[in-house]
Amino acid sequence: MAGIRGLFIPGPTNVPERVRRAMDVPMEDQRAPDLPDFTLPLFQDLKRIFQTQEGQVFLFPSSGTGGWEAAITNTLSPGDKVLAARFGQFSHLWIDLCQRHGLEVEIVDAEWGEGVPVEIYAEKLKADRDHKIKAVLACQNETATGVTSDIAGVRRALDEAKHPALLFVDGVSSIASIDFKMDEWGVDIAVAGSQKGFMLPPGLAILCVSPKALAMAKDAKLHRCYFDFADMIRTNKDGFFPYTPPLNLIRGLRASVDMLLEEGLEKVFARHHRLGEGVRRAVAAWNMKLCAKEKRWHSDTVSAIQLPDGFDSNALIRHAYRRYGLSLGMGLAKLNGKVFRIGHLGDLNELMVLSALGTTELVLRDQGVSIKAGSGVGAAIEHFHQTGTALAVAAE
Amino acid sequence: MAGIRGLFIPGPTNVPERVRRAMDVPMEDQRAPDLPDFTLPLFQDLKRIFQTQEGQVFLFPSSGTGGWEAAITNTLSPGDKVLAARFGQFSHLWIDLCQRHGLEVEIVDAEWGEGVPVEIYAEKLKADRDHKIKAVLACQNETATGVTSDIAGVRRALDEAKHPALLFVDGVSSIASIDFKMDEWGVDIAVAGSQKGFMLPPGLAILCVSPKALAMAKDAKLHRCYFDFADMIRTNKDGFFPYTPPLNLIRGLRASVDMLLEEGLEKVFARHHRLGEGVRRAVAAWNMKLCAKEKRWHSDTVSAIQLPDGFDSNALIRHAYRRYGLSLGMGLAKLNGKVFRIGHLGDLNELMVLSALGTTELVLRDQGVSIKAGSGVGAAIEHFHQTGTALAVAAE
Amino acid sequence: MAGIRGLFIPGPTNVPERVRRAMDVPMEDQRAPDLPDFTLPLFQDLKRIFQTQEGQVFLFPSSGTGGWEAAITNTLSPGDKVLAARFGQFSHLWIDLCQRHGLEVEIVDAEWGEGVPVEIYAEKLKADRDHKIKAVLACQNETATGVTSDIAGVRRALDEAKHPALLFVDGVSSIASIDFKMDEWGVDIAVAGSQKGFMLPPGLAILCVSPKALAMAKDAKLHRCYFDFADMIRTNKDGFFPYTPPLNLIRGLRASVDMLLEEGLEKVFARHHRLGEGVRRAVAAWNMKLCAKEKRWHSDTVSAIQLPDGFDSNALIRHAYRRYGLSLGMGLAKLNGKVFRIGHLGDLNELMVLSALGTTELVLRDQGVSIKAGSGVGAAIEHFHQTGTALAVAAE
Amino acid sequence: MAGIRGLFIPGPTNVPERVRRAMDVPMEDQRAPDLPDFTLPLFQDLKRIFQTQEGQVFLFPSSGTGGWEAAITNTLSPGDKVLAARFGQFSHLWIDLCQRHGLEVEIVDAEWGEGVPVEIYAEKLKADRDHKIKAVLACQNETATGVTSDIAGVRRALDEAKHPALLFVDGVSSIASIDFKMDEWGVDIAVAGSQKGFMLPPGLAILCVSPKALAMAKDAKLHRCYFDFADMIRTNKDGFFPYTPPLNLIRGLRASVDMLLEEGLEKVFARHHRLGEGVRRAVAAWNMKLCAKEKRWHSDTVSAIQLPDGFDSNALIRHAYRRYGLSLGMGLAKLNGKVFRIGHLGDLNELMVLSALGTTELVLRDQGVSIKAGSGVGAAIEHFHQTGTALAVAAE
Repeated sequence: MAGIRGLFIPGPTNVPERVRRAMDVPMEDQRAPDLPDFTLPLFQDLKRIFQTQEGQVFLFPSSGTGGWEAAITNTLSPGDKVLAARFGQFSHLWIDLCQRHGLEVEIVDAEWGEGVPVEIYAEKLKADRDHKIKAVLACQNETATGVTSDIAGVRRALDEAKHPALLFVDGVSSIASIDFKMDEWGVDIAVAGSQKGFMLPPGLAILCVSPKALAMAKDAKLHRCYFDFADMIRTNKDGFFPYTPPLNLIRGLRASVDMLLEEGLEKVFARHHRLGEGVRRAVAAWNMKLCAKEKRWHSDTVSAIQLPDGFDSNALIRHAYRRYGLSLGMGLAKLNGKVFRIGHLGDLNELMVLSALGTTELVLRDQGVSIKAGSGVGAAIEHFHQTGTALAVAAE
Repeated sequence: MAGIRGLFIPGPTNVPERVRRAMDVPMEDQRAPDLPDFTLPLFQDLKRIFQTQEGQVFLFPSSGTGGWEAAITNTLSPGDKVLAARFGQFSHLWIDLCQRHGLEVEIVDAEWGEGVPVEIYAEKLKADRDHKIKAVLACQNETATGVTSDIAGVRRALDEAKHPALLFVDGVSSIASIDFKMDEWGVDIAVAGSQKGFMLPPGLAILCVSPKALAMAKDAKLHRCYFDFADMIRTNKDGFFPYTPPLNLIRGLRASVDMLLEEGLEKVFARHHRLGEGVRRAVAAWNMKLCAKEKRWHSDTVSAIQLPDGFDSNALIRHAYRRYGLSLGMGLAKLNGKVFRIGHLGDLNELMVLSALGTTELVLRDQGVSIKAGSGVGAAIEHFHQTGTALAVAAE
Repeated sequence: MAGIRGLFIPGPTNVPERVRRAMDVPMEDQRAPDLPDFTLPLFQDLKRIFQTQEGQVFLFPSSGTGGWEAAITNTLSPGDKVLAARFGQFSHLWIDLCQRHGLEVEIVDAEWGEGVPVEIYAEKLKADRDHKIKAVLACQNETATGVTSDIAGVRRALDEAKHPALLFVDGVSSIASIDFKMDEWGVDIAVAGSQKGFMLPPGLAILCVSPKALAMAKDAKLHRCYFDFADMIRTNKDGFFPYTPPLNLIRGLRASVDMLLEEGLEKVFARHHRLGEGVRRAVAAWNMKLCAKEKRWHSDTVSAIQLPDGFDSNALIRHAYRRYGLSLGMGLAKLNGKVFRIGHLGDLNELMVLSALGTTELVLRDQGVSIKAGSGVGAAIEHFHQTGTALAVAAE
Repeated sequence: MAGIRGLFIPGPTNVPERVRRAMDVPMEDQRAPDLPDFTLPLFQDLKRIFQTQEGQVFLFPSSGTGGWEAAITNTLSPGDKVLAARFGQFSHLWIDLCQRHGLEVEIVDAEWGEGVPVEIYAEKLKADRDHKIKAVLACQNETATGVTSDIAGVRRALDEAKHPALLFVDGVSSIASIDFKMDEWGVDIAVAGSQKGFMLPPGLAILCVSPKALAMAKDAKLHRCYFDFADMIRTNKDGFFPYTPPLNLIRGLRASVDMLLEEGLEKVFARHHRLGEGVRRAVAAWNMKLCAKEKRWHSDTVSAIQLPDGFDSNALIRHAYRRYGLSLGMGLAKLNGKVFRIGHLGDLNELMVLSALGTTELVLRDQGVSIKAGSGVGAAIEHFHQTGTALAVAAE
């Protein structure tokens, strides 16, 4: 197939040329004497991405799932109770992982399309006078439904209940794209992955852990070795790793962190909001609906879009991929066949969003969905045009 | 600036990943014993791109301008007369080059926006009873105006006049994108460049030369050494080169020729036509005009689009580049400031064209040009949708 | 520092250009409809590397340590007994991992420089009439000491004792470089890593698991989720993965498996033996000693070389790295400061080995070690010359 | 064939990873508004490589041969007389090029293995009272024989004769590797190429031209267009080019110039001298002879080594390439079959030189040449060791 393909799934995201080049290097010795000159400042700069002073960053060679596992096995013991909301495939999977590790999960189900029900959390925490709940789990951005939750709200719920439970946040598809404030929100463990806002290939779970969570390790009885914070702490402090690290990915991480800090986190978040809103304007112009039930749940990194009845989103996605080289995200679990997702995160700009929207319109037309060609793209263009004036003045 | 940039100038074109990888190799010895196993089949396959049995292909490390120089210095002598039409910046420059090499050029001026005036050529050739005209020059695709000329028609004019002059064609922005038939059209020298339909970086002039033109060399008195066919013929026959060749570019050429032949030339040309027509539909929807004055001149590789009076195309192009990372082609020479050009050739697909059109609409809106956002993109989508059904059936 | 650096640690190894190019690709959708066309044949071909018909291959995004963890957590329960020999840093670490996961390890200590004491294993297994030992661990190649063990011998010990314990082999620094026969040797789980004989960057643990070991999963009580075989089995069978796989590494794996199979495993092993022997000839010419105490323990992938008393191998390694860009392997744990290691595995040839030996001689001279410059290189050259005749005839 | 191949021809040279990465970028617009921000400083920094204040640098998309052509066509007229020495294949070819362009060349033949015979030049220039000689040609480094000439001496000969002829220097295989002082030596045109000391792929001729030579253009009657300085001057001053430049090569040039300036030219030259001397020590240890007849002609970028009678250097080179992946330089023209050349220029270090020498020894042994394995490598190691102390102190 001729031409550049379009990757608009909610991760892995497009890897910038600069990051690709940073990774395309000959292999190197993970025990080289000058490696700490590279790794130690990187660990420091990663803290800036998490907006933390006190947290410690860990890099595990794994997917985000491994990050979830690291979070619980280093802090909890079999039978410990955790509070978690379930409102999409990824919040579901983290709960499943907890259960398989022998934790007791108090599950709060919400509709798919809503986010963490902060009010219910608040009630549960207040009711838990004995502090049986050891950790509260919250998925900041549910990738399956395109829903962003209110993490600051979860913190307020904990604080108001004066509850000592740890706060664990799945930020895999939000951190580095949507505002995330480790210290301000009192997050104890944040789990991110290389392949979303960090604009890298998959292969690294990136965690940030509070001193409070680190202190739990000594009493945490869940078995762990590969994901043990202790081995990392012991070797990372000198700039090394307990086992062979994927150094080319970490070289790439240096480049992506540089890019994020050079652009500035505020601008990165603003860019994601502006581009995400462009997609939402297009969806509205098509007279379609997002999964996200209310504006307050709208995710700036991914939109899950409901197809009209009678259309199969899997067929649409296959057609987009095979005919036009456009990768859209599938509907997962109970959304399968009913929604398609447009990932709008990472190394993204107006040109790319317009290519995704234009090609999606073409695909919708080909599939017989009733939309007016150009309507969604036009709405996004108008949004970009109208919100771009301030940017324009600054840029030229 | 975040995200993938859009390169929509009429060359250099986007280099496919496959070609990039083929070029990103360690340097090698240009006298390696196994180099001929690589070069000799490549020369053969290049002939297929020119649609020739009898022609010989030459690869000069130079731009297309060097290819023009090679064409004339190997065949002509100071004072020789050539017939050439001038209707754009590139047809102008080839004429200038001829003059600087001491040739007498009979110039036929046409309006910028028209192509080779075949009828006038026919008259001139018929009138040239003494056959003073040694060569006829024709630019198949005038990149400055987006105009494609009728090369078969020029051949007919020569044949009808029973004129023995050589036929030289500038196919830099057409060959490998628009149909070109070396043998069928009796072309004596065709000049192409690496950075257009061949989807490579600049750096190679690719010529195809008929036996008749090769035979001219012995009497051609123009000085030449770097561009001498004779040195190439002597060394190429064994698979080598007279001086250090840019082997990594030639490795990339192998990949691009493979891509062209795998897709099939007919399909490559059809794809360019379909995508080019999508751009033209957008221009029409914007109520704008192409430079190309008539449908028969429409180029499938580049569209030169006239901005309404009162707008500066240079400002538009700067804005597109700086704000959105979109490269559009400038208006050249007397078209400067008045037109912008969209290159739609090489490694291109619907997704890319829609990104260019969408972003161009955004740029037009930002510049205050009166268009309806989405109108051009929508027209292109409709064109792609309606012409895509047959393709769809074949592809799935 | 000018020039190509020399990477001669026992992993990560040099990544071939072909593999680098295979990995340097834009990101792609891990749920793309055509992904199984890529992954399913790869899983099949990986079985050829393990020389197995019945085994199933797993790819975990992790280091080799993660592979060890996967092996035990999918098959064993807390308190289960395993038999393991300890004779170097890596055999030590696997034992440590088992203990941290709550297993009872019957440790057989051997001298560092020896391999698995097959005779003692045989005795222990015969003595274990109740079959308390659920698994036997064996490190095929102890990377810290450059010692290769006799895995077929361990199998014989099991068979002679008619013992049903599983046989787990750490083949991280042997598989794809030194002969390894999964089926013939009755190995139940083999753990390999991407960054050694597979010539990839770190980031993938590559396991091969026998049906017998897979059957253990249902009763295995160790907690697992990230490393659960079951999730992989469920998704791999359709060509997908349970969580985001590092697809660019897996694209590289396709290239490295192709290279291994094109060269032929027998030739790969013979090449490693020939090159490793060249290194050993050099060491002998320097009048130095290997850690490996006897010829039968000699590793074809890494040589650990003892420095004469009074010299600090860490200083030597730092000097080699800083002055000449040569990476040698450190002495680990109790060998620290006393030995340096030359890795001679992966994408390696005579030219590279001679560069390592020549530069090592230069480093030894600079450090004041008494050797004759050229002696080791000369011995290796003679070995390569004398053993090369047969190869020569075949190759030309 | 497994492993890294060894490229030790006298160009193209090994392209550093940093340069490869700089070139492996998406194509870009050669008329982009910000291009001058890149090109103008590059032109300035290139002047530092030529050690000139007054000279102007030109970048032609061509091989070095094109650079020779540019030098003469921009300054001379048909029938003009030039003085040139011939003592190797490349000095021969430049003379041939002059003749084909209609110049009258006064040829001074010297033995192959000697350099420019400065004394004879001095006589000829003194004798030329009428100043018929318009230009003096000198090849600073004859790549075919490994001979470096005394350019300062040629300048003295001109000065002593008070002769106004231009001084043209072929520095293709010397500039950026061996000291070259444009201004101090009063060179009028220096011709370099991208694929030697500039460590890039072939494809760029890099010229530096004095104001005096530039002033010749207005009376120079040789035809030129592609290689016309005037078009370059007109467009380069604003940071652009008269025709499509090979921008990815020029991006690479930025990286290589940075590398040269960061290392420092003095250190670059010293490194080449030290490494070249290592090769010469090895040749002496093998009891072989260089083509270069005296120490004063020794080239620090290439050694042409005479094989003993009865051996065919072409067979040796083929064997080295096919069996070991080592590329050595052929003997050219009358040296064919008799010599092989080791290129030791560009991105080179001790480790690489030792790999070339070690593998060459292996090849010599395989071919039956009587040398002691390790002797040459040992001699080079001793040289590097003994001359490295001062460097060592500085580096650590």
